[in-house]
Amino acid sequence: MIFNMQKTALDSTRQSDYGQWYQDVIQAADLAEHSMSRGSMILKPWGYALWERCQQILDKKFKATGHQNAYFPLLIPLSCFQKEADHIAGFAKECAVVTHHRLKSNADGKLVPDGELEEPYIIRPTSEMIIGEAFSRWVESYRDLPVLINQWANVMRWEMRTRLFIRTTEILWQEGHTAHATAEEARSETLMILDVYRDFLKEVMALPVLQGEKPAVERFPGAVETYTIEAMTQNGKALQAGTSHFMGQNFAHACNIQFLNKTGQQEHAWTTSWGVTTRLIGALIMAHSDDNGLVLPANLAPYHIVILPMVKGQESDSAGLEYCANLKNSLEQVLYAGEPIRVHIDSRDRRGGEKSWSWIKKGVPVRMEIGARDLQNDQVCWSVRMKDASPTEKTMQSRQEFLSSIADVLRNQHQALWDNAITERQAQTQFVQSKAQLEAICQKFREDDEKSPGFLECFLADCAEIGDLLKAYQLTPRCIPLGRQEERGTCLLTGKPDSPLMIVAKAY
Amino acid sequence: MIFNMQKTALDSTRQSDYGQWYQDVIQAADLAEHSMSRGSMILKPWGYALWERCQQILDKKFKATGHQNAYFPLLIPLSCFQKEADHIAGFAKECAVVTHHRLKSNADGKLVPDGELEEPYIIRPTSEMIIGEAFSRWVESYRDLPVLINQWANVMRWEMRTRLFIRTTEILWQEGHTAHATAEEARSETLMILDVYRDFLKEVMALPVLQGEKPAVERFPGAVETYTIEAMTQNGKALQAGTSHFMGQNFAHACNIQFLNKTGQQEHAWTTSWGVTTRLIGALIMAHSDDNGLVLPANLAPYHIVILPMVKGQESDSAGLEYCANLKNSLEQVLYAGEPIRVHIDSRDRRGGEKSWSWIKKGVPVRMEIGARDLQNDQVCWSVRMKDASPTEKTMQSRQEFLSSIADVLRNQHQALWDNAITERQAQTQFVQSKAQLEAICQKFREDDEKSPGFLECFLADCAEIGDLLKAYQLTPRCIPLGRQEERGTCLLTGKPDSPLMIVAKAY
Repeated sequence: MIFNMQKTALDSTRQSDYGQWYQDVIQAADLAEHSMSRGSMILKPWGYALWERCQQILDKKFKATGHQNAYFPLLIPLSCFQKEADHIAGFAKECAVVTHHRLKSNADGKLVPDGELEEPYIIRPTSEMIIGEAFSRWVESYRDLPVLINQWANVMRWEMRTRLFIRTTEILWQEGHTAHATAEEARSETLMILDVYRDFLKEVMALPVLQGEKPAVERFPGAVETYTIEAMTQNGKALQAGTSHFMGQNFAHACNIQFLNKTGQQEHAWTTSWGVTTRLIGALIMAHSDDNGLVLPANLAPYHIVILPMVKGQESDSAGLEYCANLKNSLEQVLYAGEPIRVHIDSRDRRGGEKSWSWIKKGVPVRMEIGARDLQNDQVCWSVRMKDASPTEKTMQSRQEFLSSIADVLRNQHQALWDNAITERQAQTQFVQSKAQLEAICQKFREDDEKSPGFLECFLADCAEIGDLLKAYQLTPRCIPLGRQEERGTCLLTGKPDSPLMIVAKAY
Repeated sequence: MIFNMQKTALDSTRQSDYGQWYQDVIQAADLAEHSMSRGSMILKPWGYALWERCQQILDKKFKATGHQNAYFPLLIPLSCFQKEADHIAGFAKECAVVTHHRLKSNADGKLVPDGELEEPYIIRPTSEMIIGEAFSRWVESYRDLPVLINQWANVMRWEMRTRLFIRTTEILWQEGHTAHATAEEARSETLMILDVYRDFLKEVMALPVLQGEKPAVERFPGAVETYTIEAMTQNGKALQAGTSHFMGQNFAHACNIQFLNKTGQQEHAWTTSWGVTTRLIGALIMAHSDDNGLVLPANLAPYHIVILPMVKGQESDSAGLEYCANLKNSLEQVLYAGEPIRVHIDSRDRRGGEKSWSWIKKGVPVRMEIGARDLQNDQVCWSVRMKDASPTEKTMQSRQEFLSSIADVLRNQHQALWDNAITERQAQTQFVQSKAQLEAICQKFREDDEKSPGFLECFLADCAEIGDLLKAYQLTPRCIPLGRQEERGTCLLTGKPDSPLMIVAKAY
């Protein structure tokens, strides 16, 4: 991790206080803020624009792989929600309960809940049960399978310790729910989506993730297998960025999803579910930002380029604005990653320096300051937002030269962020041979919660007590990486033979 | 209203039972269904696809007029919600209240709400208060104005009598919220958006609406002026399709949205809010469907064209599918309304007639059945879905001829639906001169709730009792039409002079 030690735009730095720095990045980029609704955040326009980009691109990928969007109710009757025993046990401690359907004034003139419901509703923490109930009506024969549904929605989990984007009570997400005729097909859907997520994170967010299966203790309540993509923060912690679950026939039994197979017999379907949330934006911040604020990879950025007209005085003003408008038009003719370049002209009535730094902190890949001299010489002056590089270093080019190289500038910026994240992750990943080595590594980091040993690869038994055993080291089991299930050895903590290779880390 | 008296696809007809017919259209087109969450519907893929099209196109229009998307919390603390007196009075009787944040097992092993909240939350029925609270923090000086925000969200109003798309407890919608430095600017925003809605409904849904101001008794709780767009159903009822509210400074006072003006003084801002919901799809069904099901105007249809491969036998099968795939490719090169034509090949393992009728009932504008003979002759056979015309009448054309005329076919289909809706509305609109005439008109329709006199134009006082007086006629005041505020006369019911021209109708 290379920290820029010059004077930087944020009050905190990653080194001085990583947790505070994370919050400062969000505030400086004007992404989101806490609200008066406990634990729920307000997604401000720039933060929402990032989520919209994620939505648009993921939505295309889901549709290209045969899924259709639908929408299911926010409120789930308690009797419906509790049909799957593990599922209800997993969510009972953190769900918002609706008990009344109106308000009345009491004797003191104070408004109080009124109209108690015969049966309480819970606000969906996830929608397996209410979607499963619909599937049970939609599916009759093998001809109706597979059912491939996705929903963009809000869900609610009453978290006690919240943090913007990472852990909030209300969450914006997508949840895919599918039903299949065979276990093989359902499992392959589960893993296909895990690849969709990984590819999206690479292509759009320049964010490397580790794909793996969650150990049993970390499974989604009711799932047979839970797969995860794990990202790494700059201070070496693990952040679960998305999950995909193979449910076996558990939910098909609980919701009665049956179909007539080709030989005329009733069978239970095999289901999956999978989701990513606005936490993706938290992972983005954790991976790419620096002490000057957010850094947006070019493929994600809502604007690739912001043009700041720096002209003063009435006459040159109008000529300057026209020059900027023409420049914007020319840039929008250039294709980057198959789409027209996205350009914004910031003509707000603010000081130039204030505007310039606001876009540095918002992470826009390229910033152009256009002054009177640029007009005269038909030239442009631009800066690129690279992680841990000076954001104010300028390049001067003829307009033509710039137009013919801008797509490469964006491509390189995206690639550099990816390369950097890969390098950082490699530097913070190590194989741990023994319990003694694990202890030595963790000893160094035990005192400071903001420090972390990175991803540790250890042989560990996939058993019920593994989570508790790791707690002593302030570590959590993250996943058994895909493609490495064959690597097996003796468990460092329990001594059990033939244990899988597991990634463990501090959790963010 | 011309009803097709031949044998039709639905069990009910508009003439036999309009209310049942509406439900049958929804079921036959597989748009939505009731759920186990009381009064909330499940939007099935075809219904959601219609809403997605509305979202995409409206979202572009909102952005083109300077608005940005953001997202605010689902739950509003009761103390926040009740700050505006009229507002809370208007919603207190129909809001879902969250009182607990977890579940526990009671002595009988039954799950019951647990963890009572210190202060209850209500699920937003609308977001003026929580967004206003944010605006109060976001706005400091005139430089921060206007704030132009839109949110795509779900809201909840505990309606007792629900109907798919028209009135549900949970509603998907967009809500715009803006704050301005002057009353003029806020009012002009309110009216500009009303034009955005009208244009959208015309261009995309082929749906004529009347723009007008709601009389005082029908205003949004807390608004100074409420503007509406009113659509007409085929049985002559009025359906409010969207509203736009000028709030004056009411919410700015309640939420403390103040700014420093150019002369250095603190002023309260002027706010607006405006929204449309999935009810738009209800209005669409009401206007364009016939006794064979849904009819989708070309500009809205998720698919313009569905291709049904009708080939049988293995050899011709693969040739037939290839022919269809090539046809799809060729069609996707054709632009309609500025976008590539949207084509779907239905290769499901079902009987041809079943597939064909399923798309008739889903309302896809053009259906193509491709058989072995078409391959041999390089020709196509297609049918267009027009309201109250035979959906199975076929046209045979060479492939080339079809490709060069398809954009016109779609344009004409959309235009014909618009023309038809305009004609039907004109035929069901009349000026009412006297109370006696009003009584005579209503007498005819009083017995049957499914019949209605259409839009009645009457001089009526904009006073508190007008709603109750009209109830005796089973009528509701809809709006004072824009552009006709100068037309004034003596109120038919109260005798008050200088009363505005008001549109009254039965409400759907």
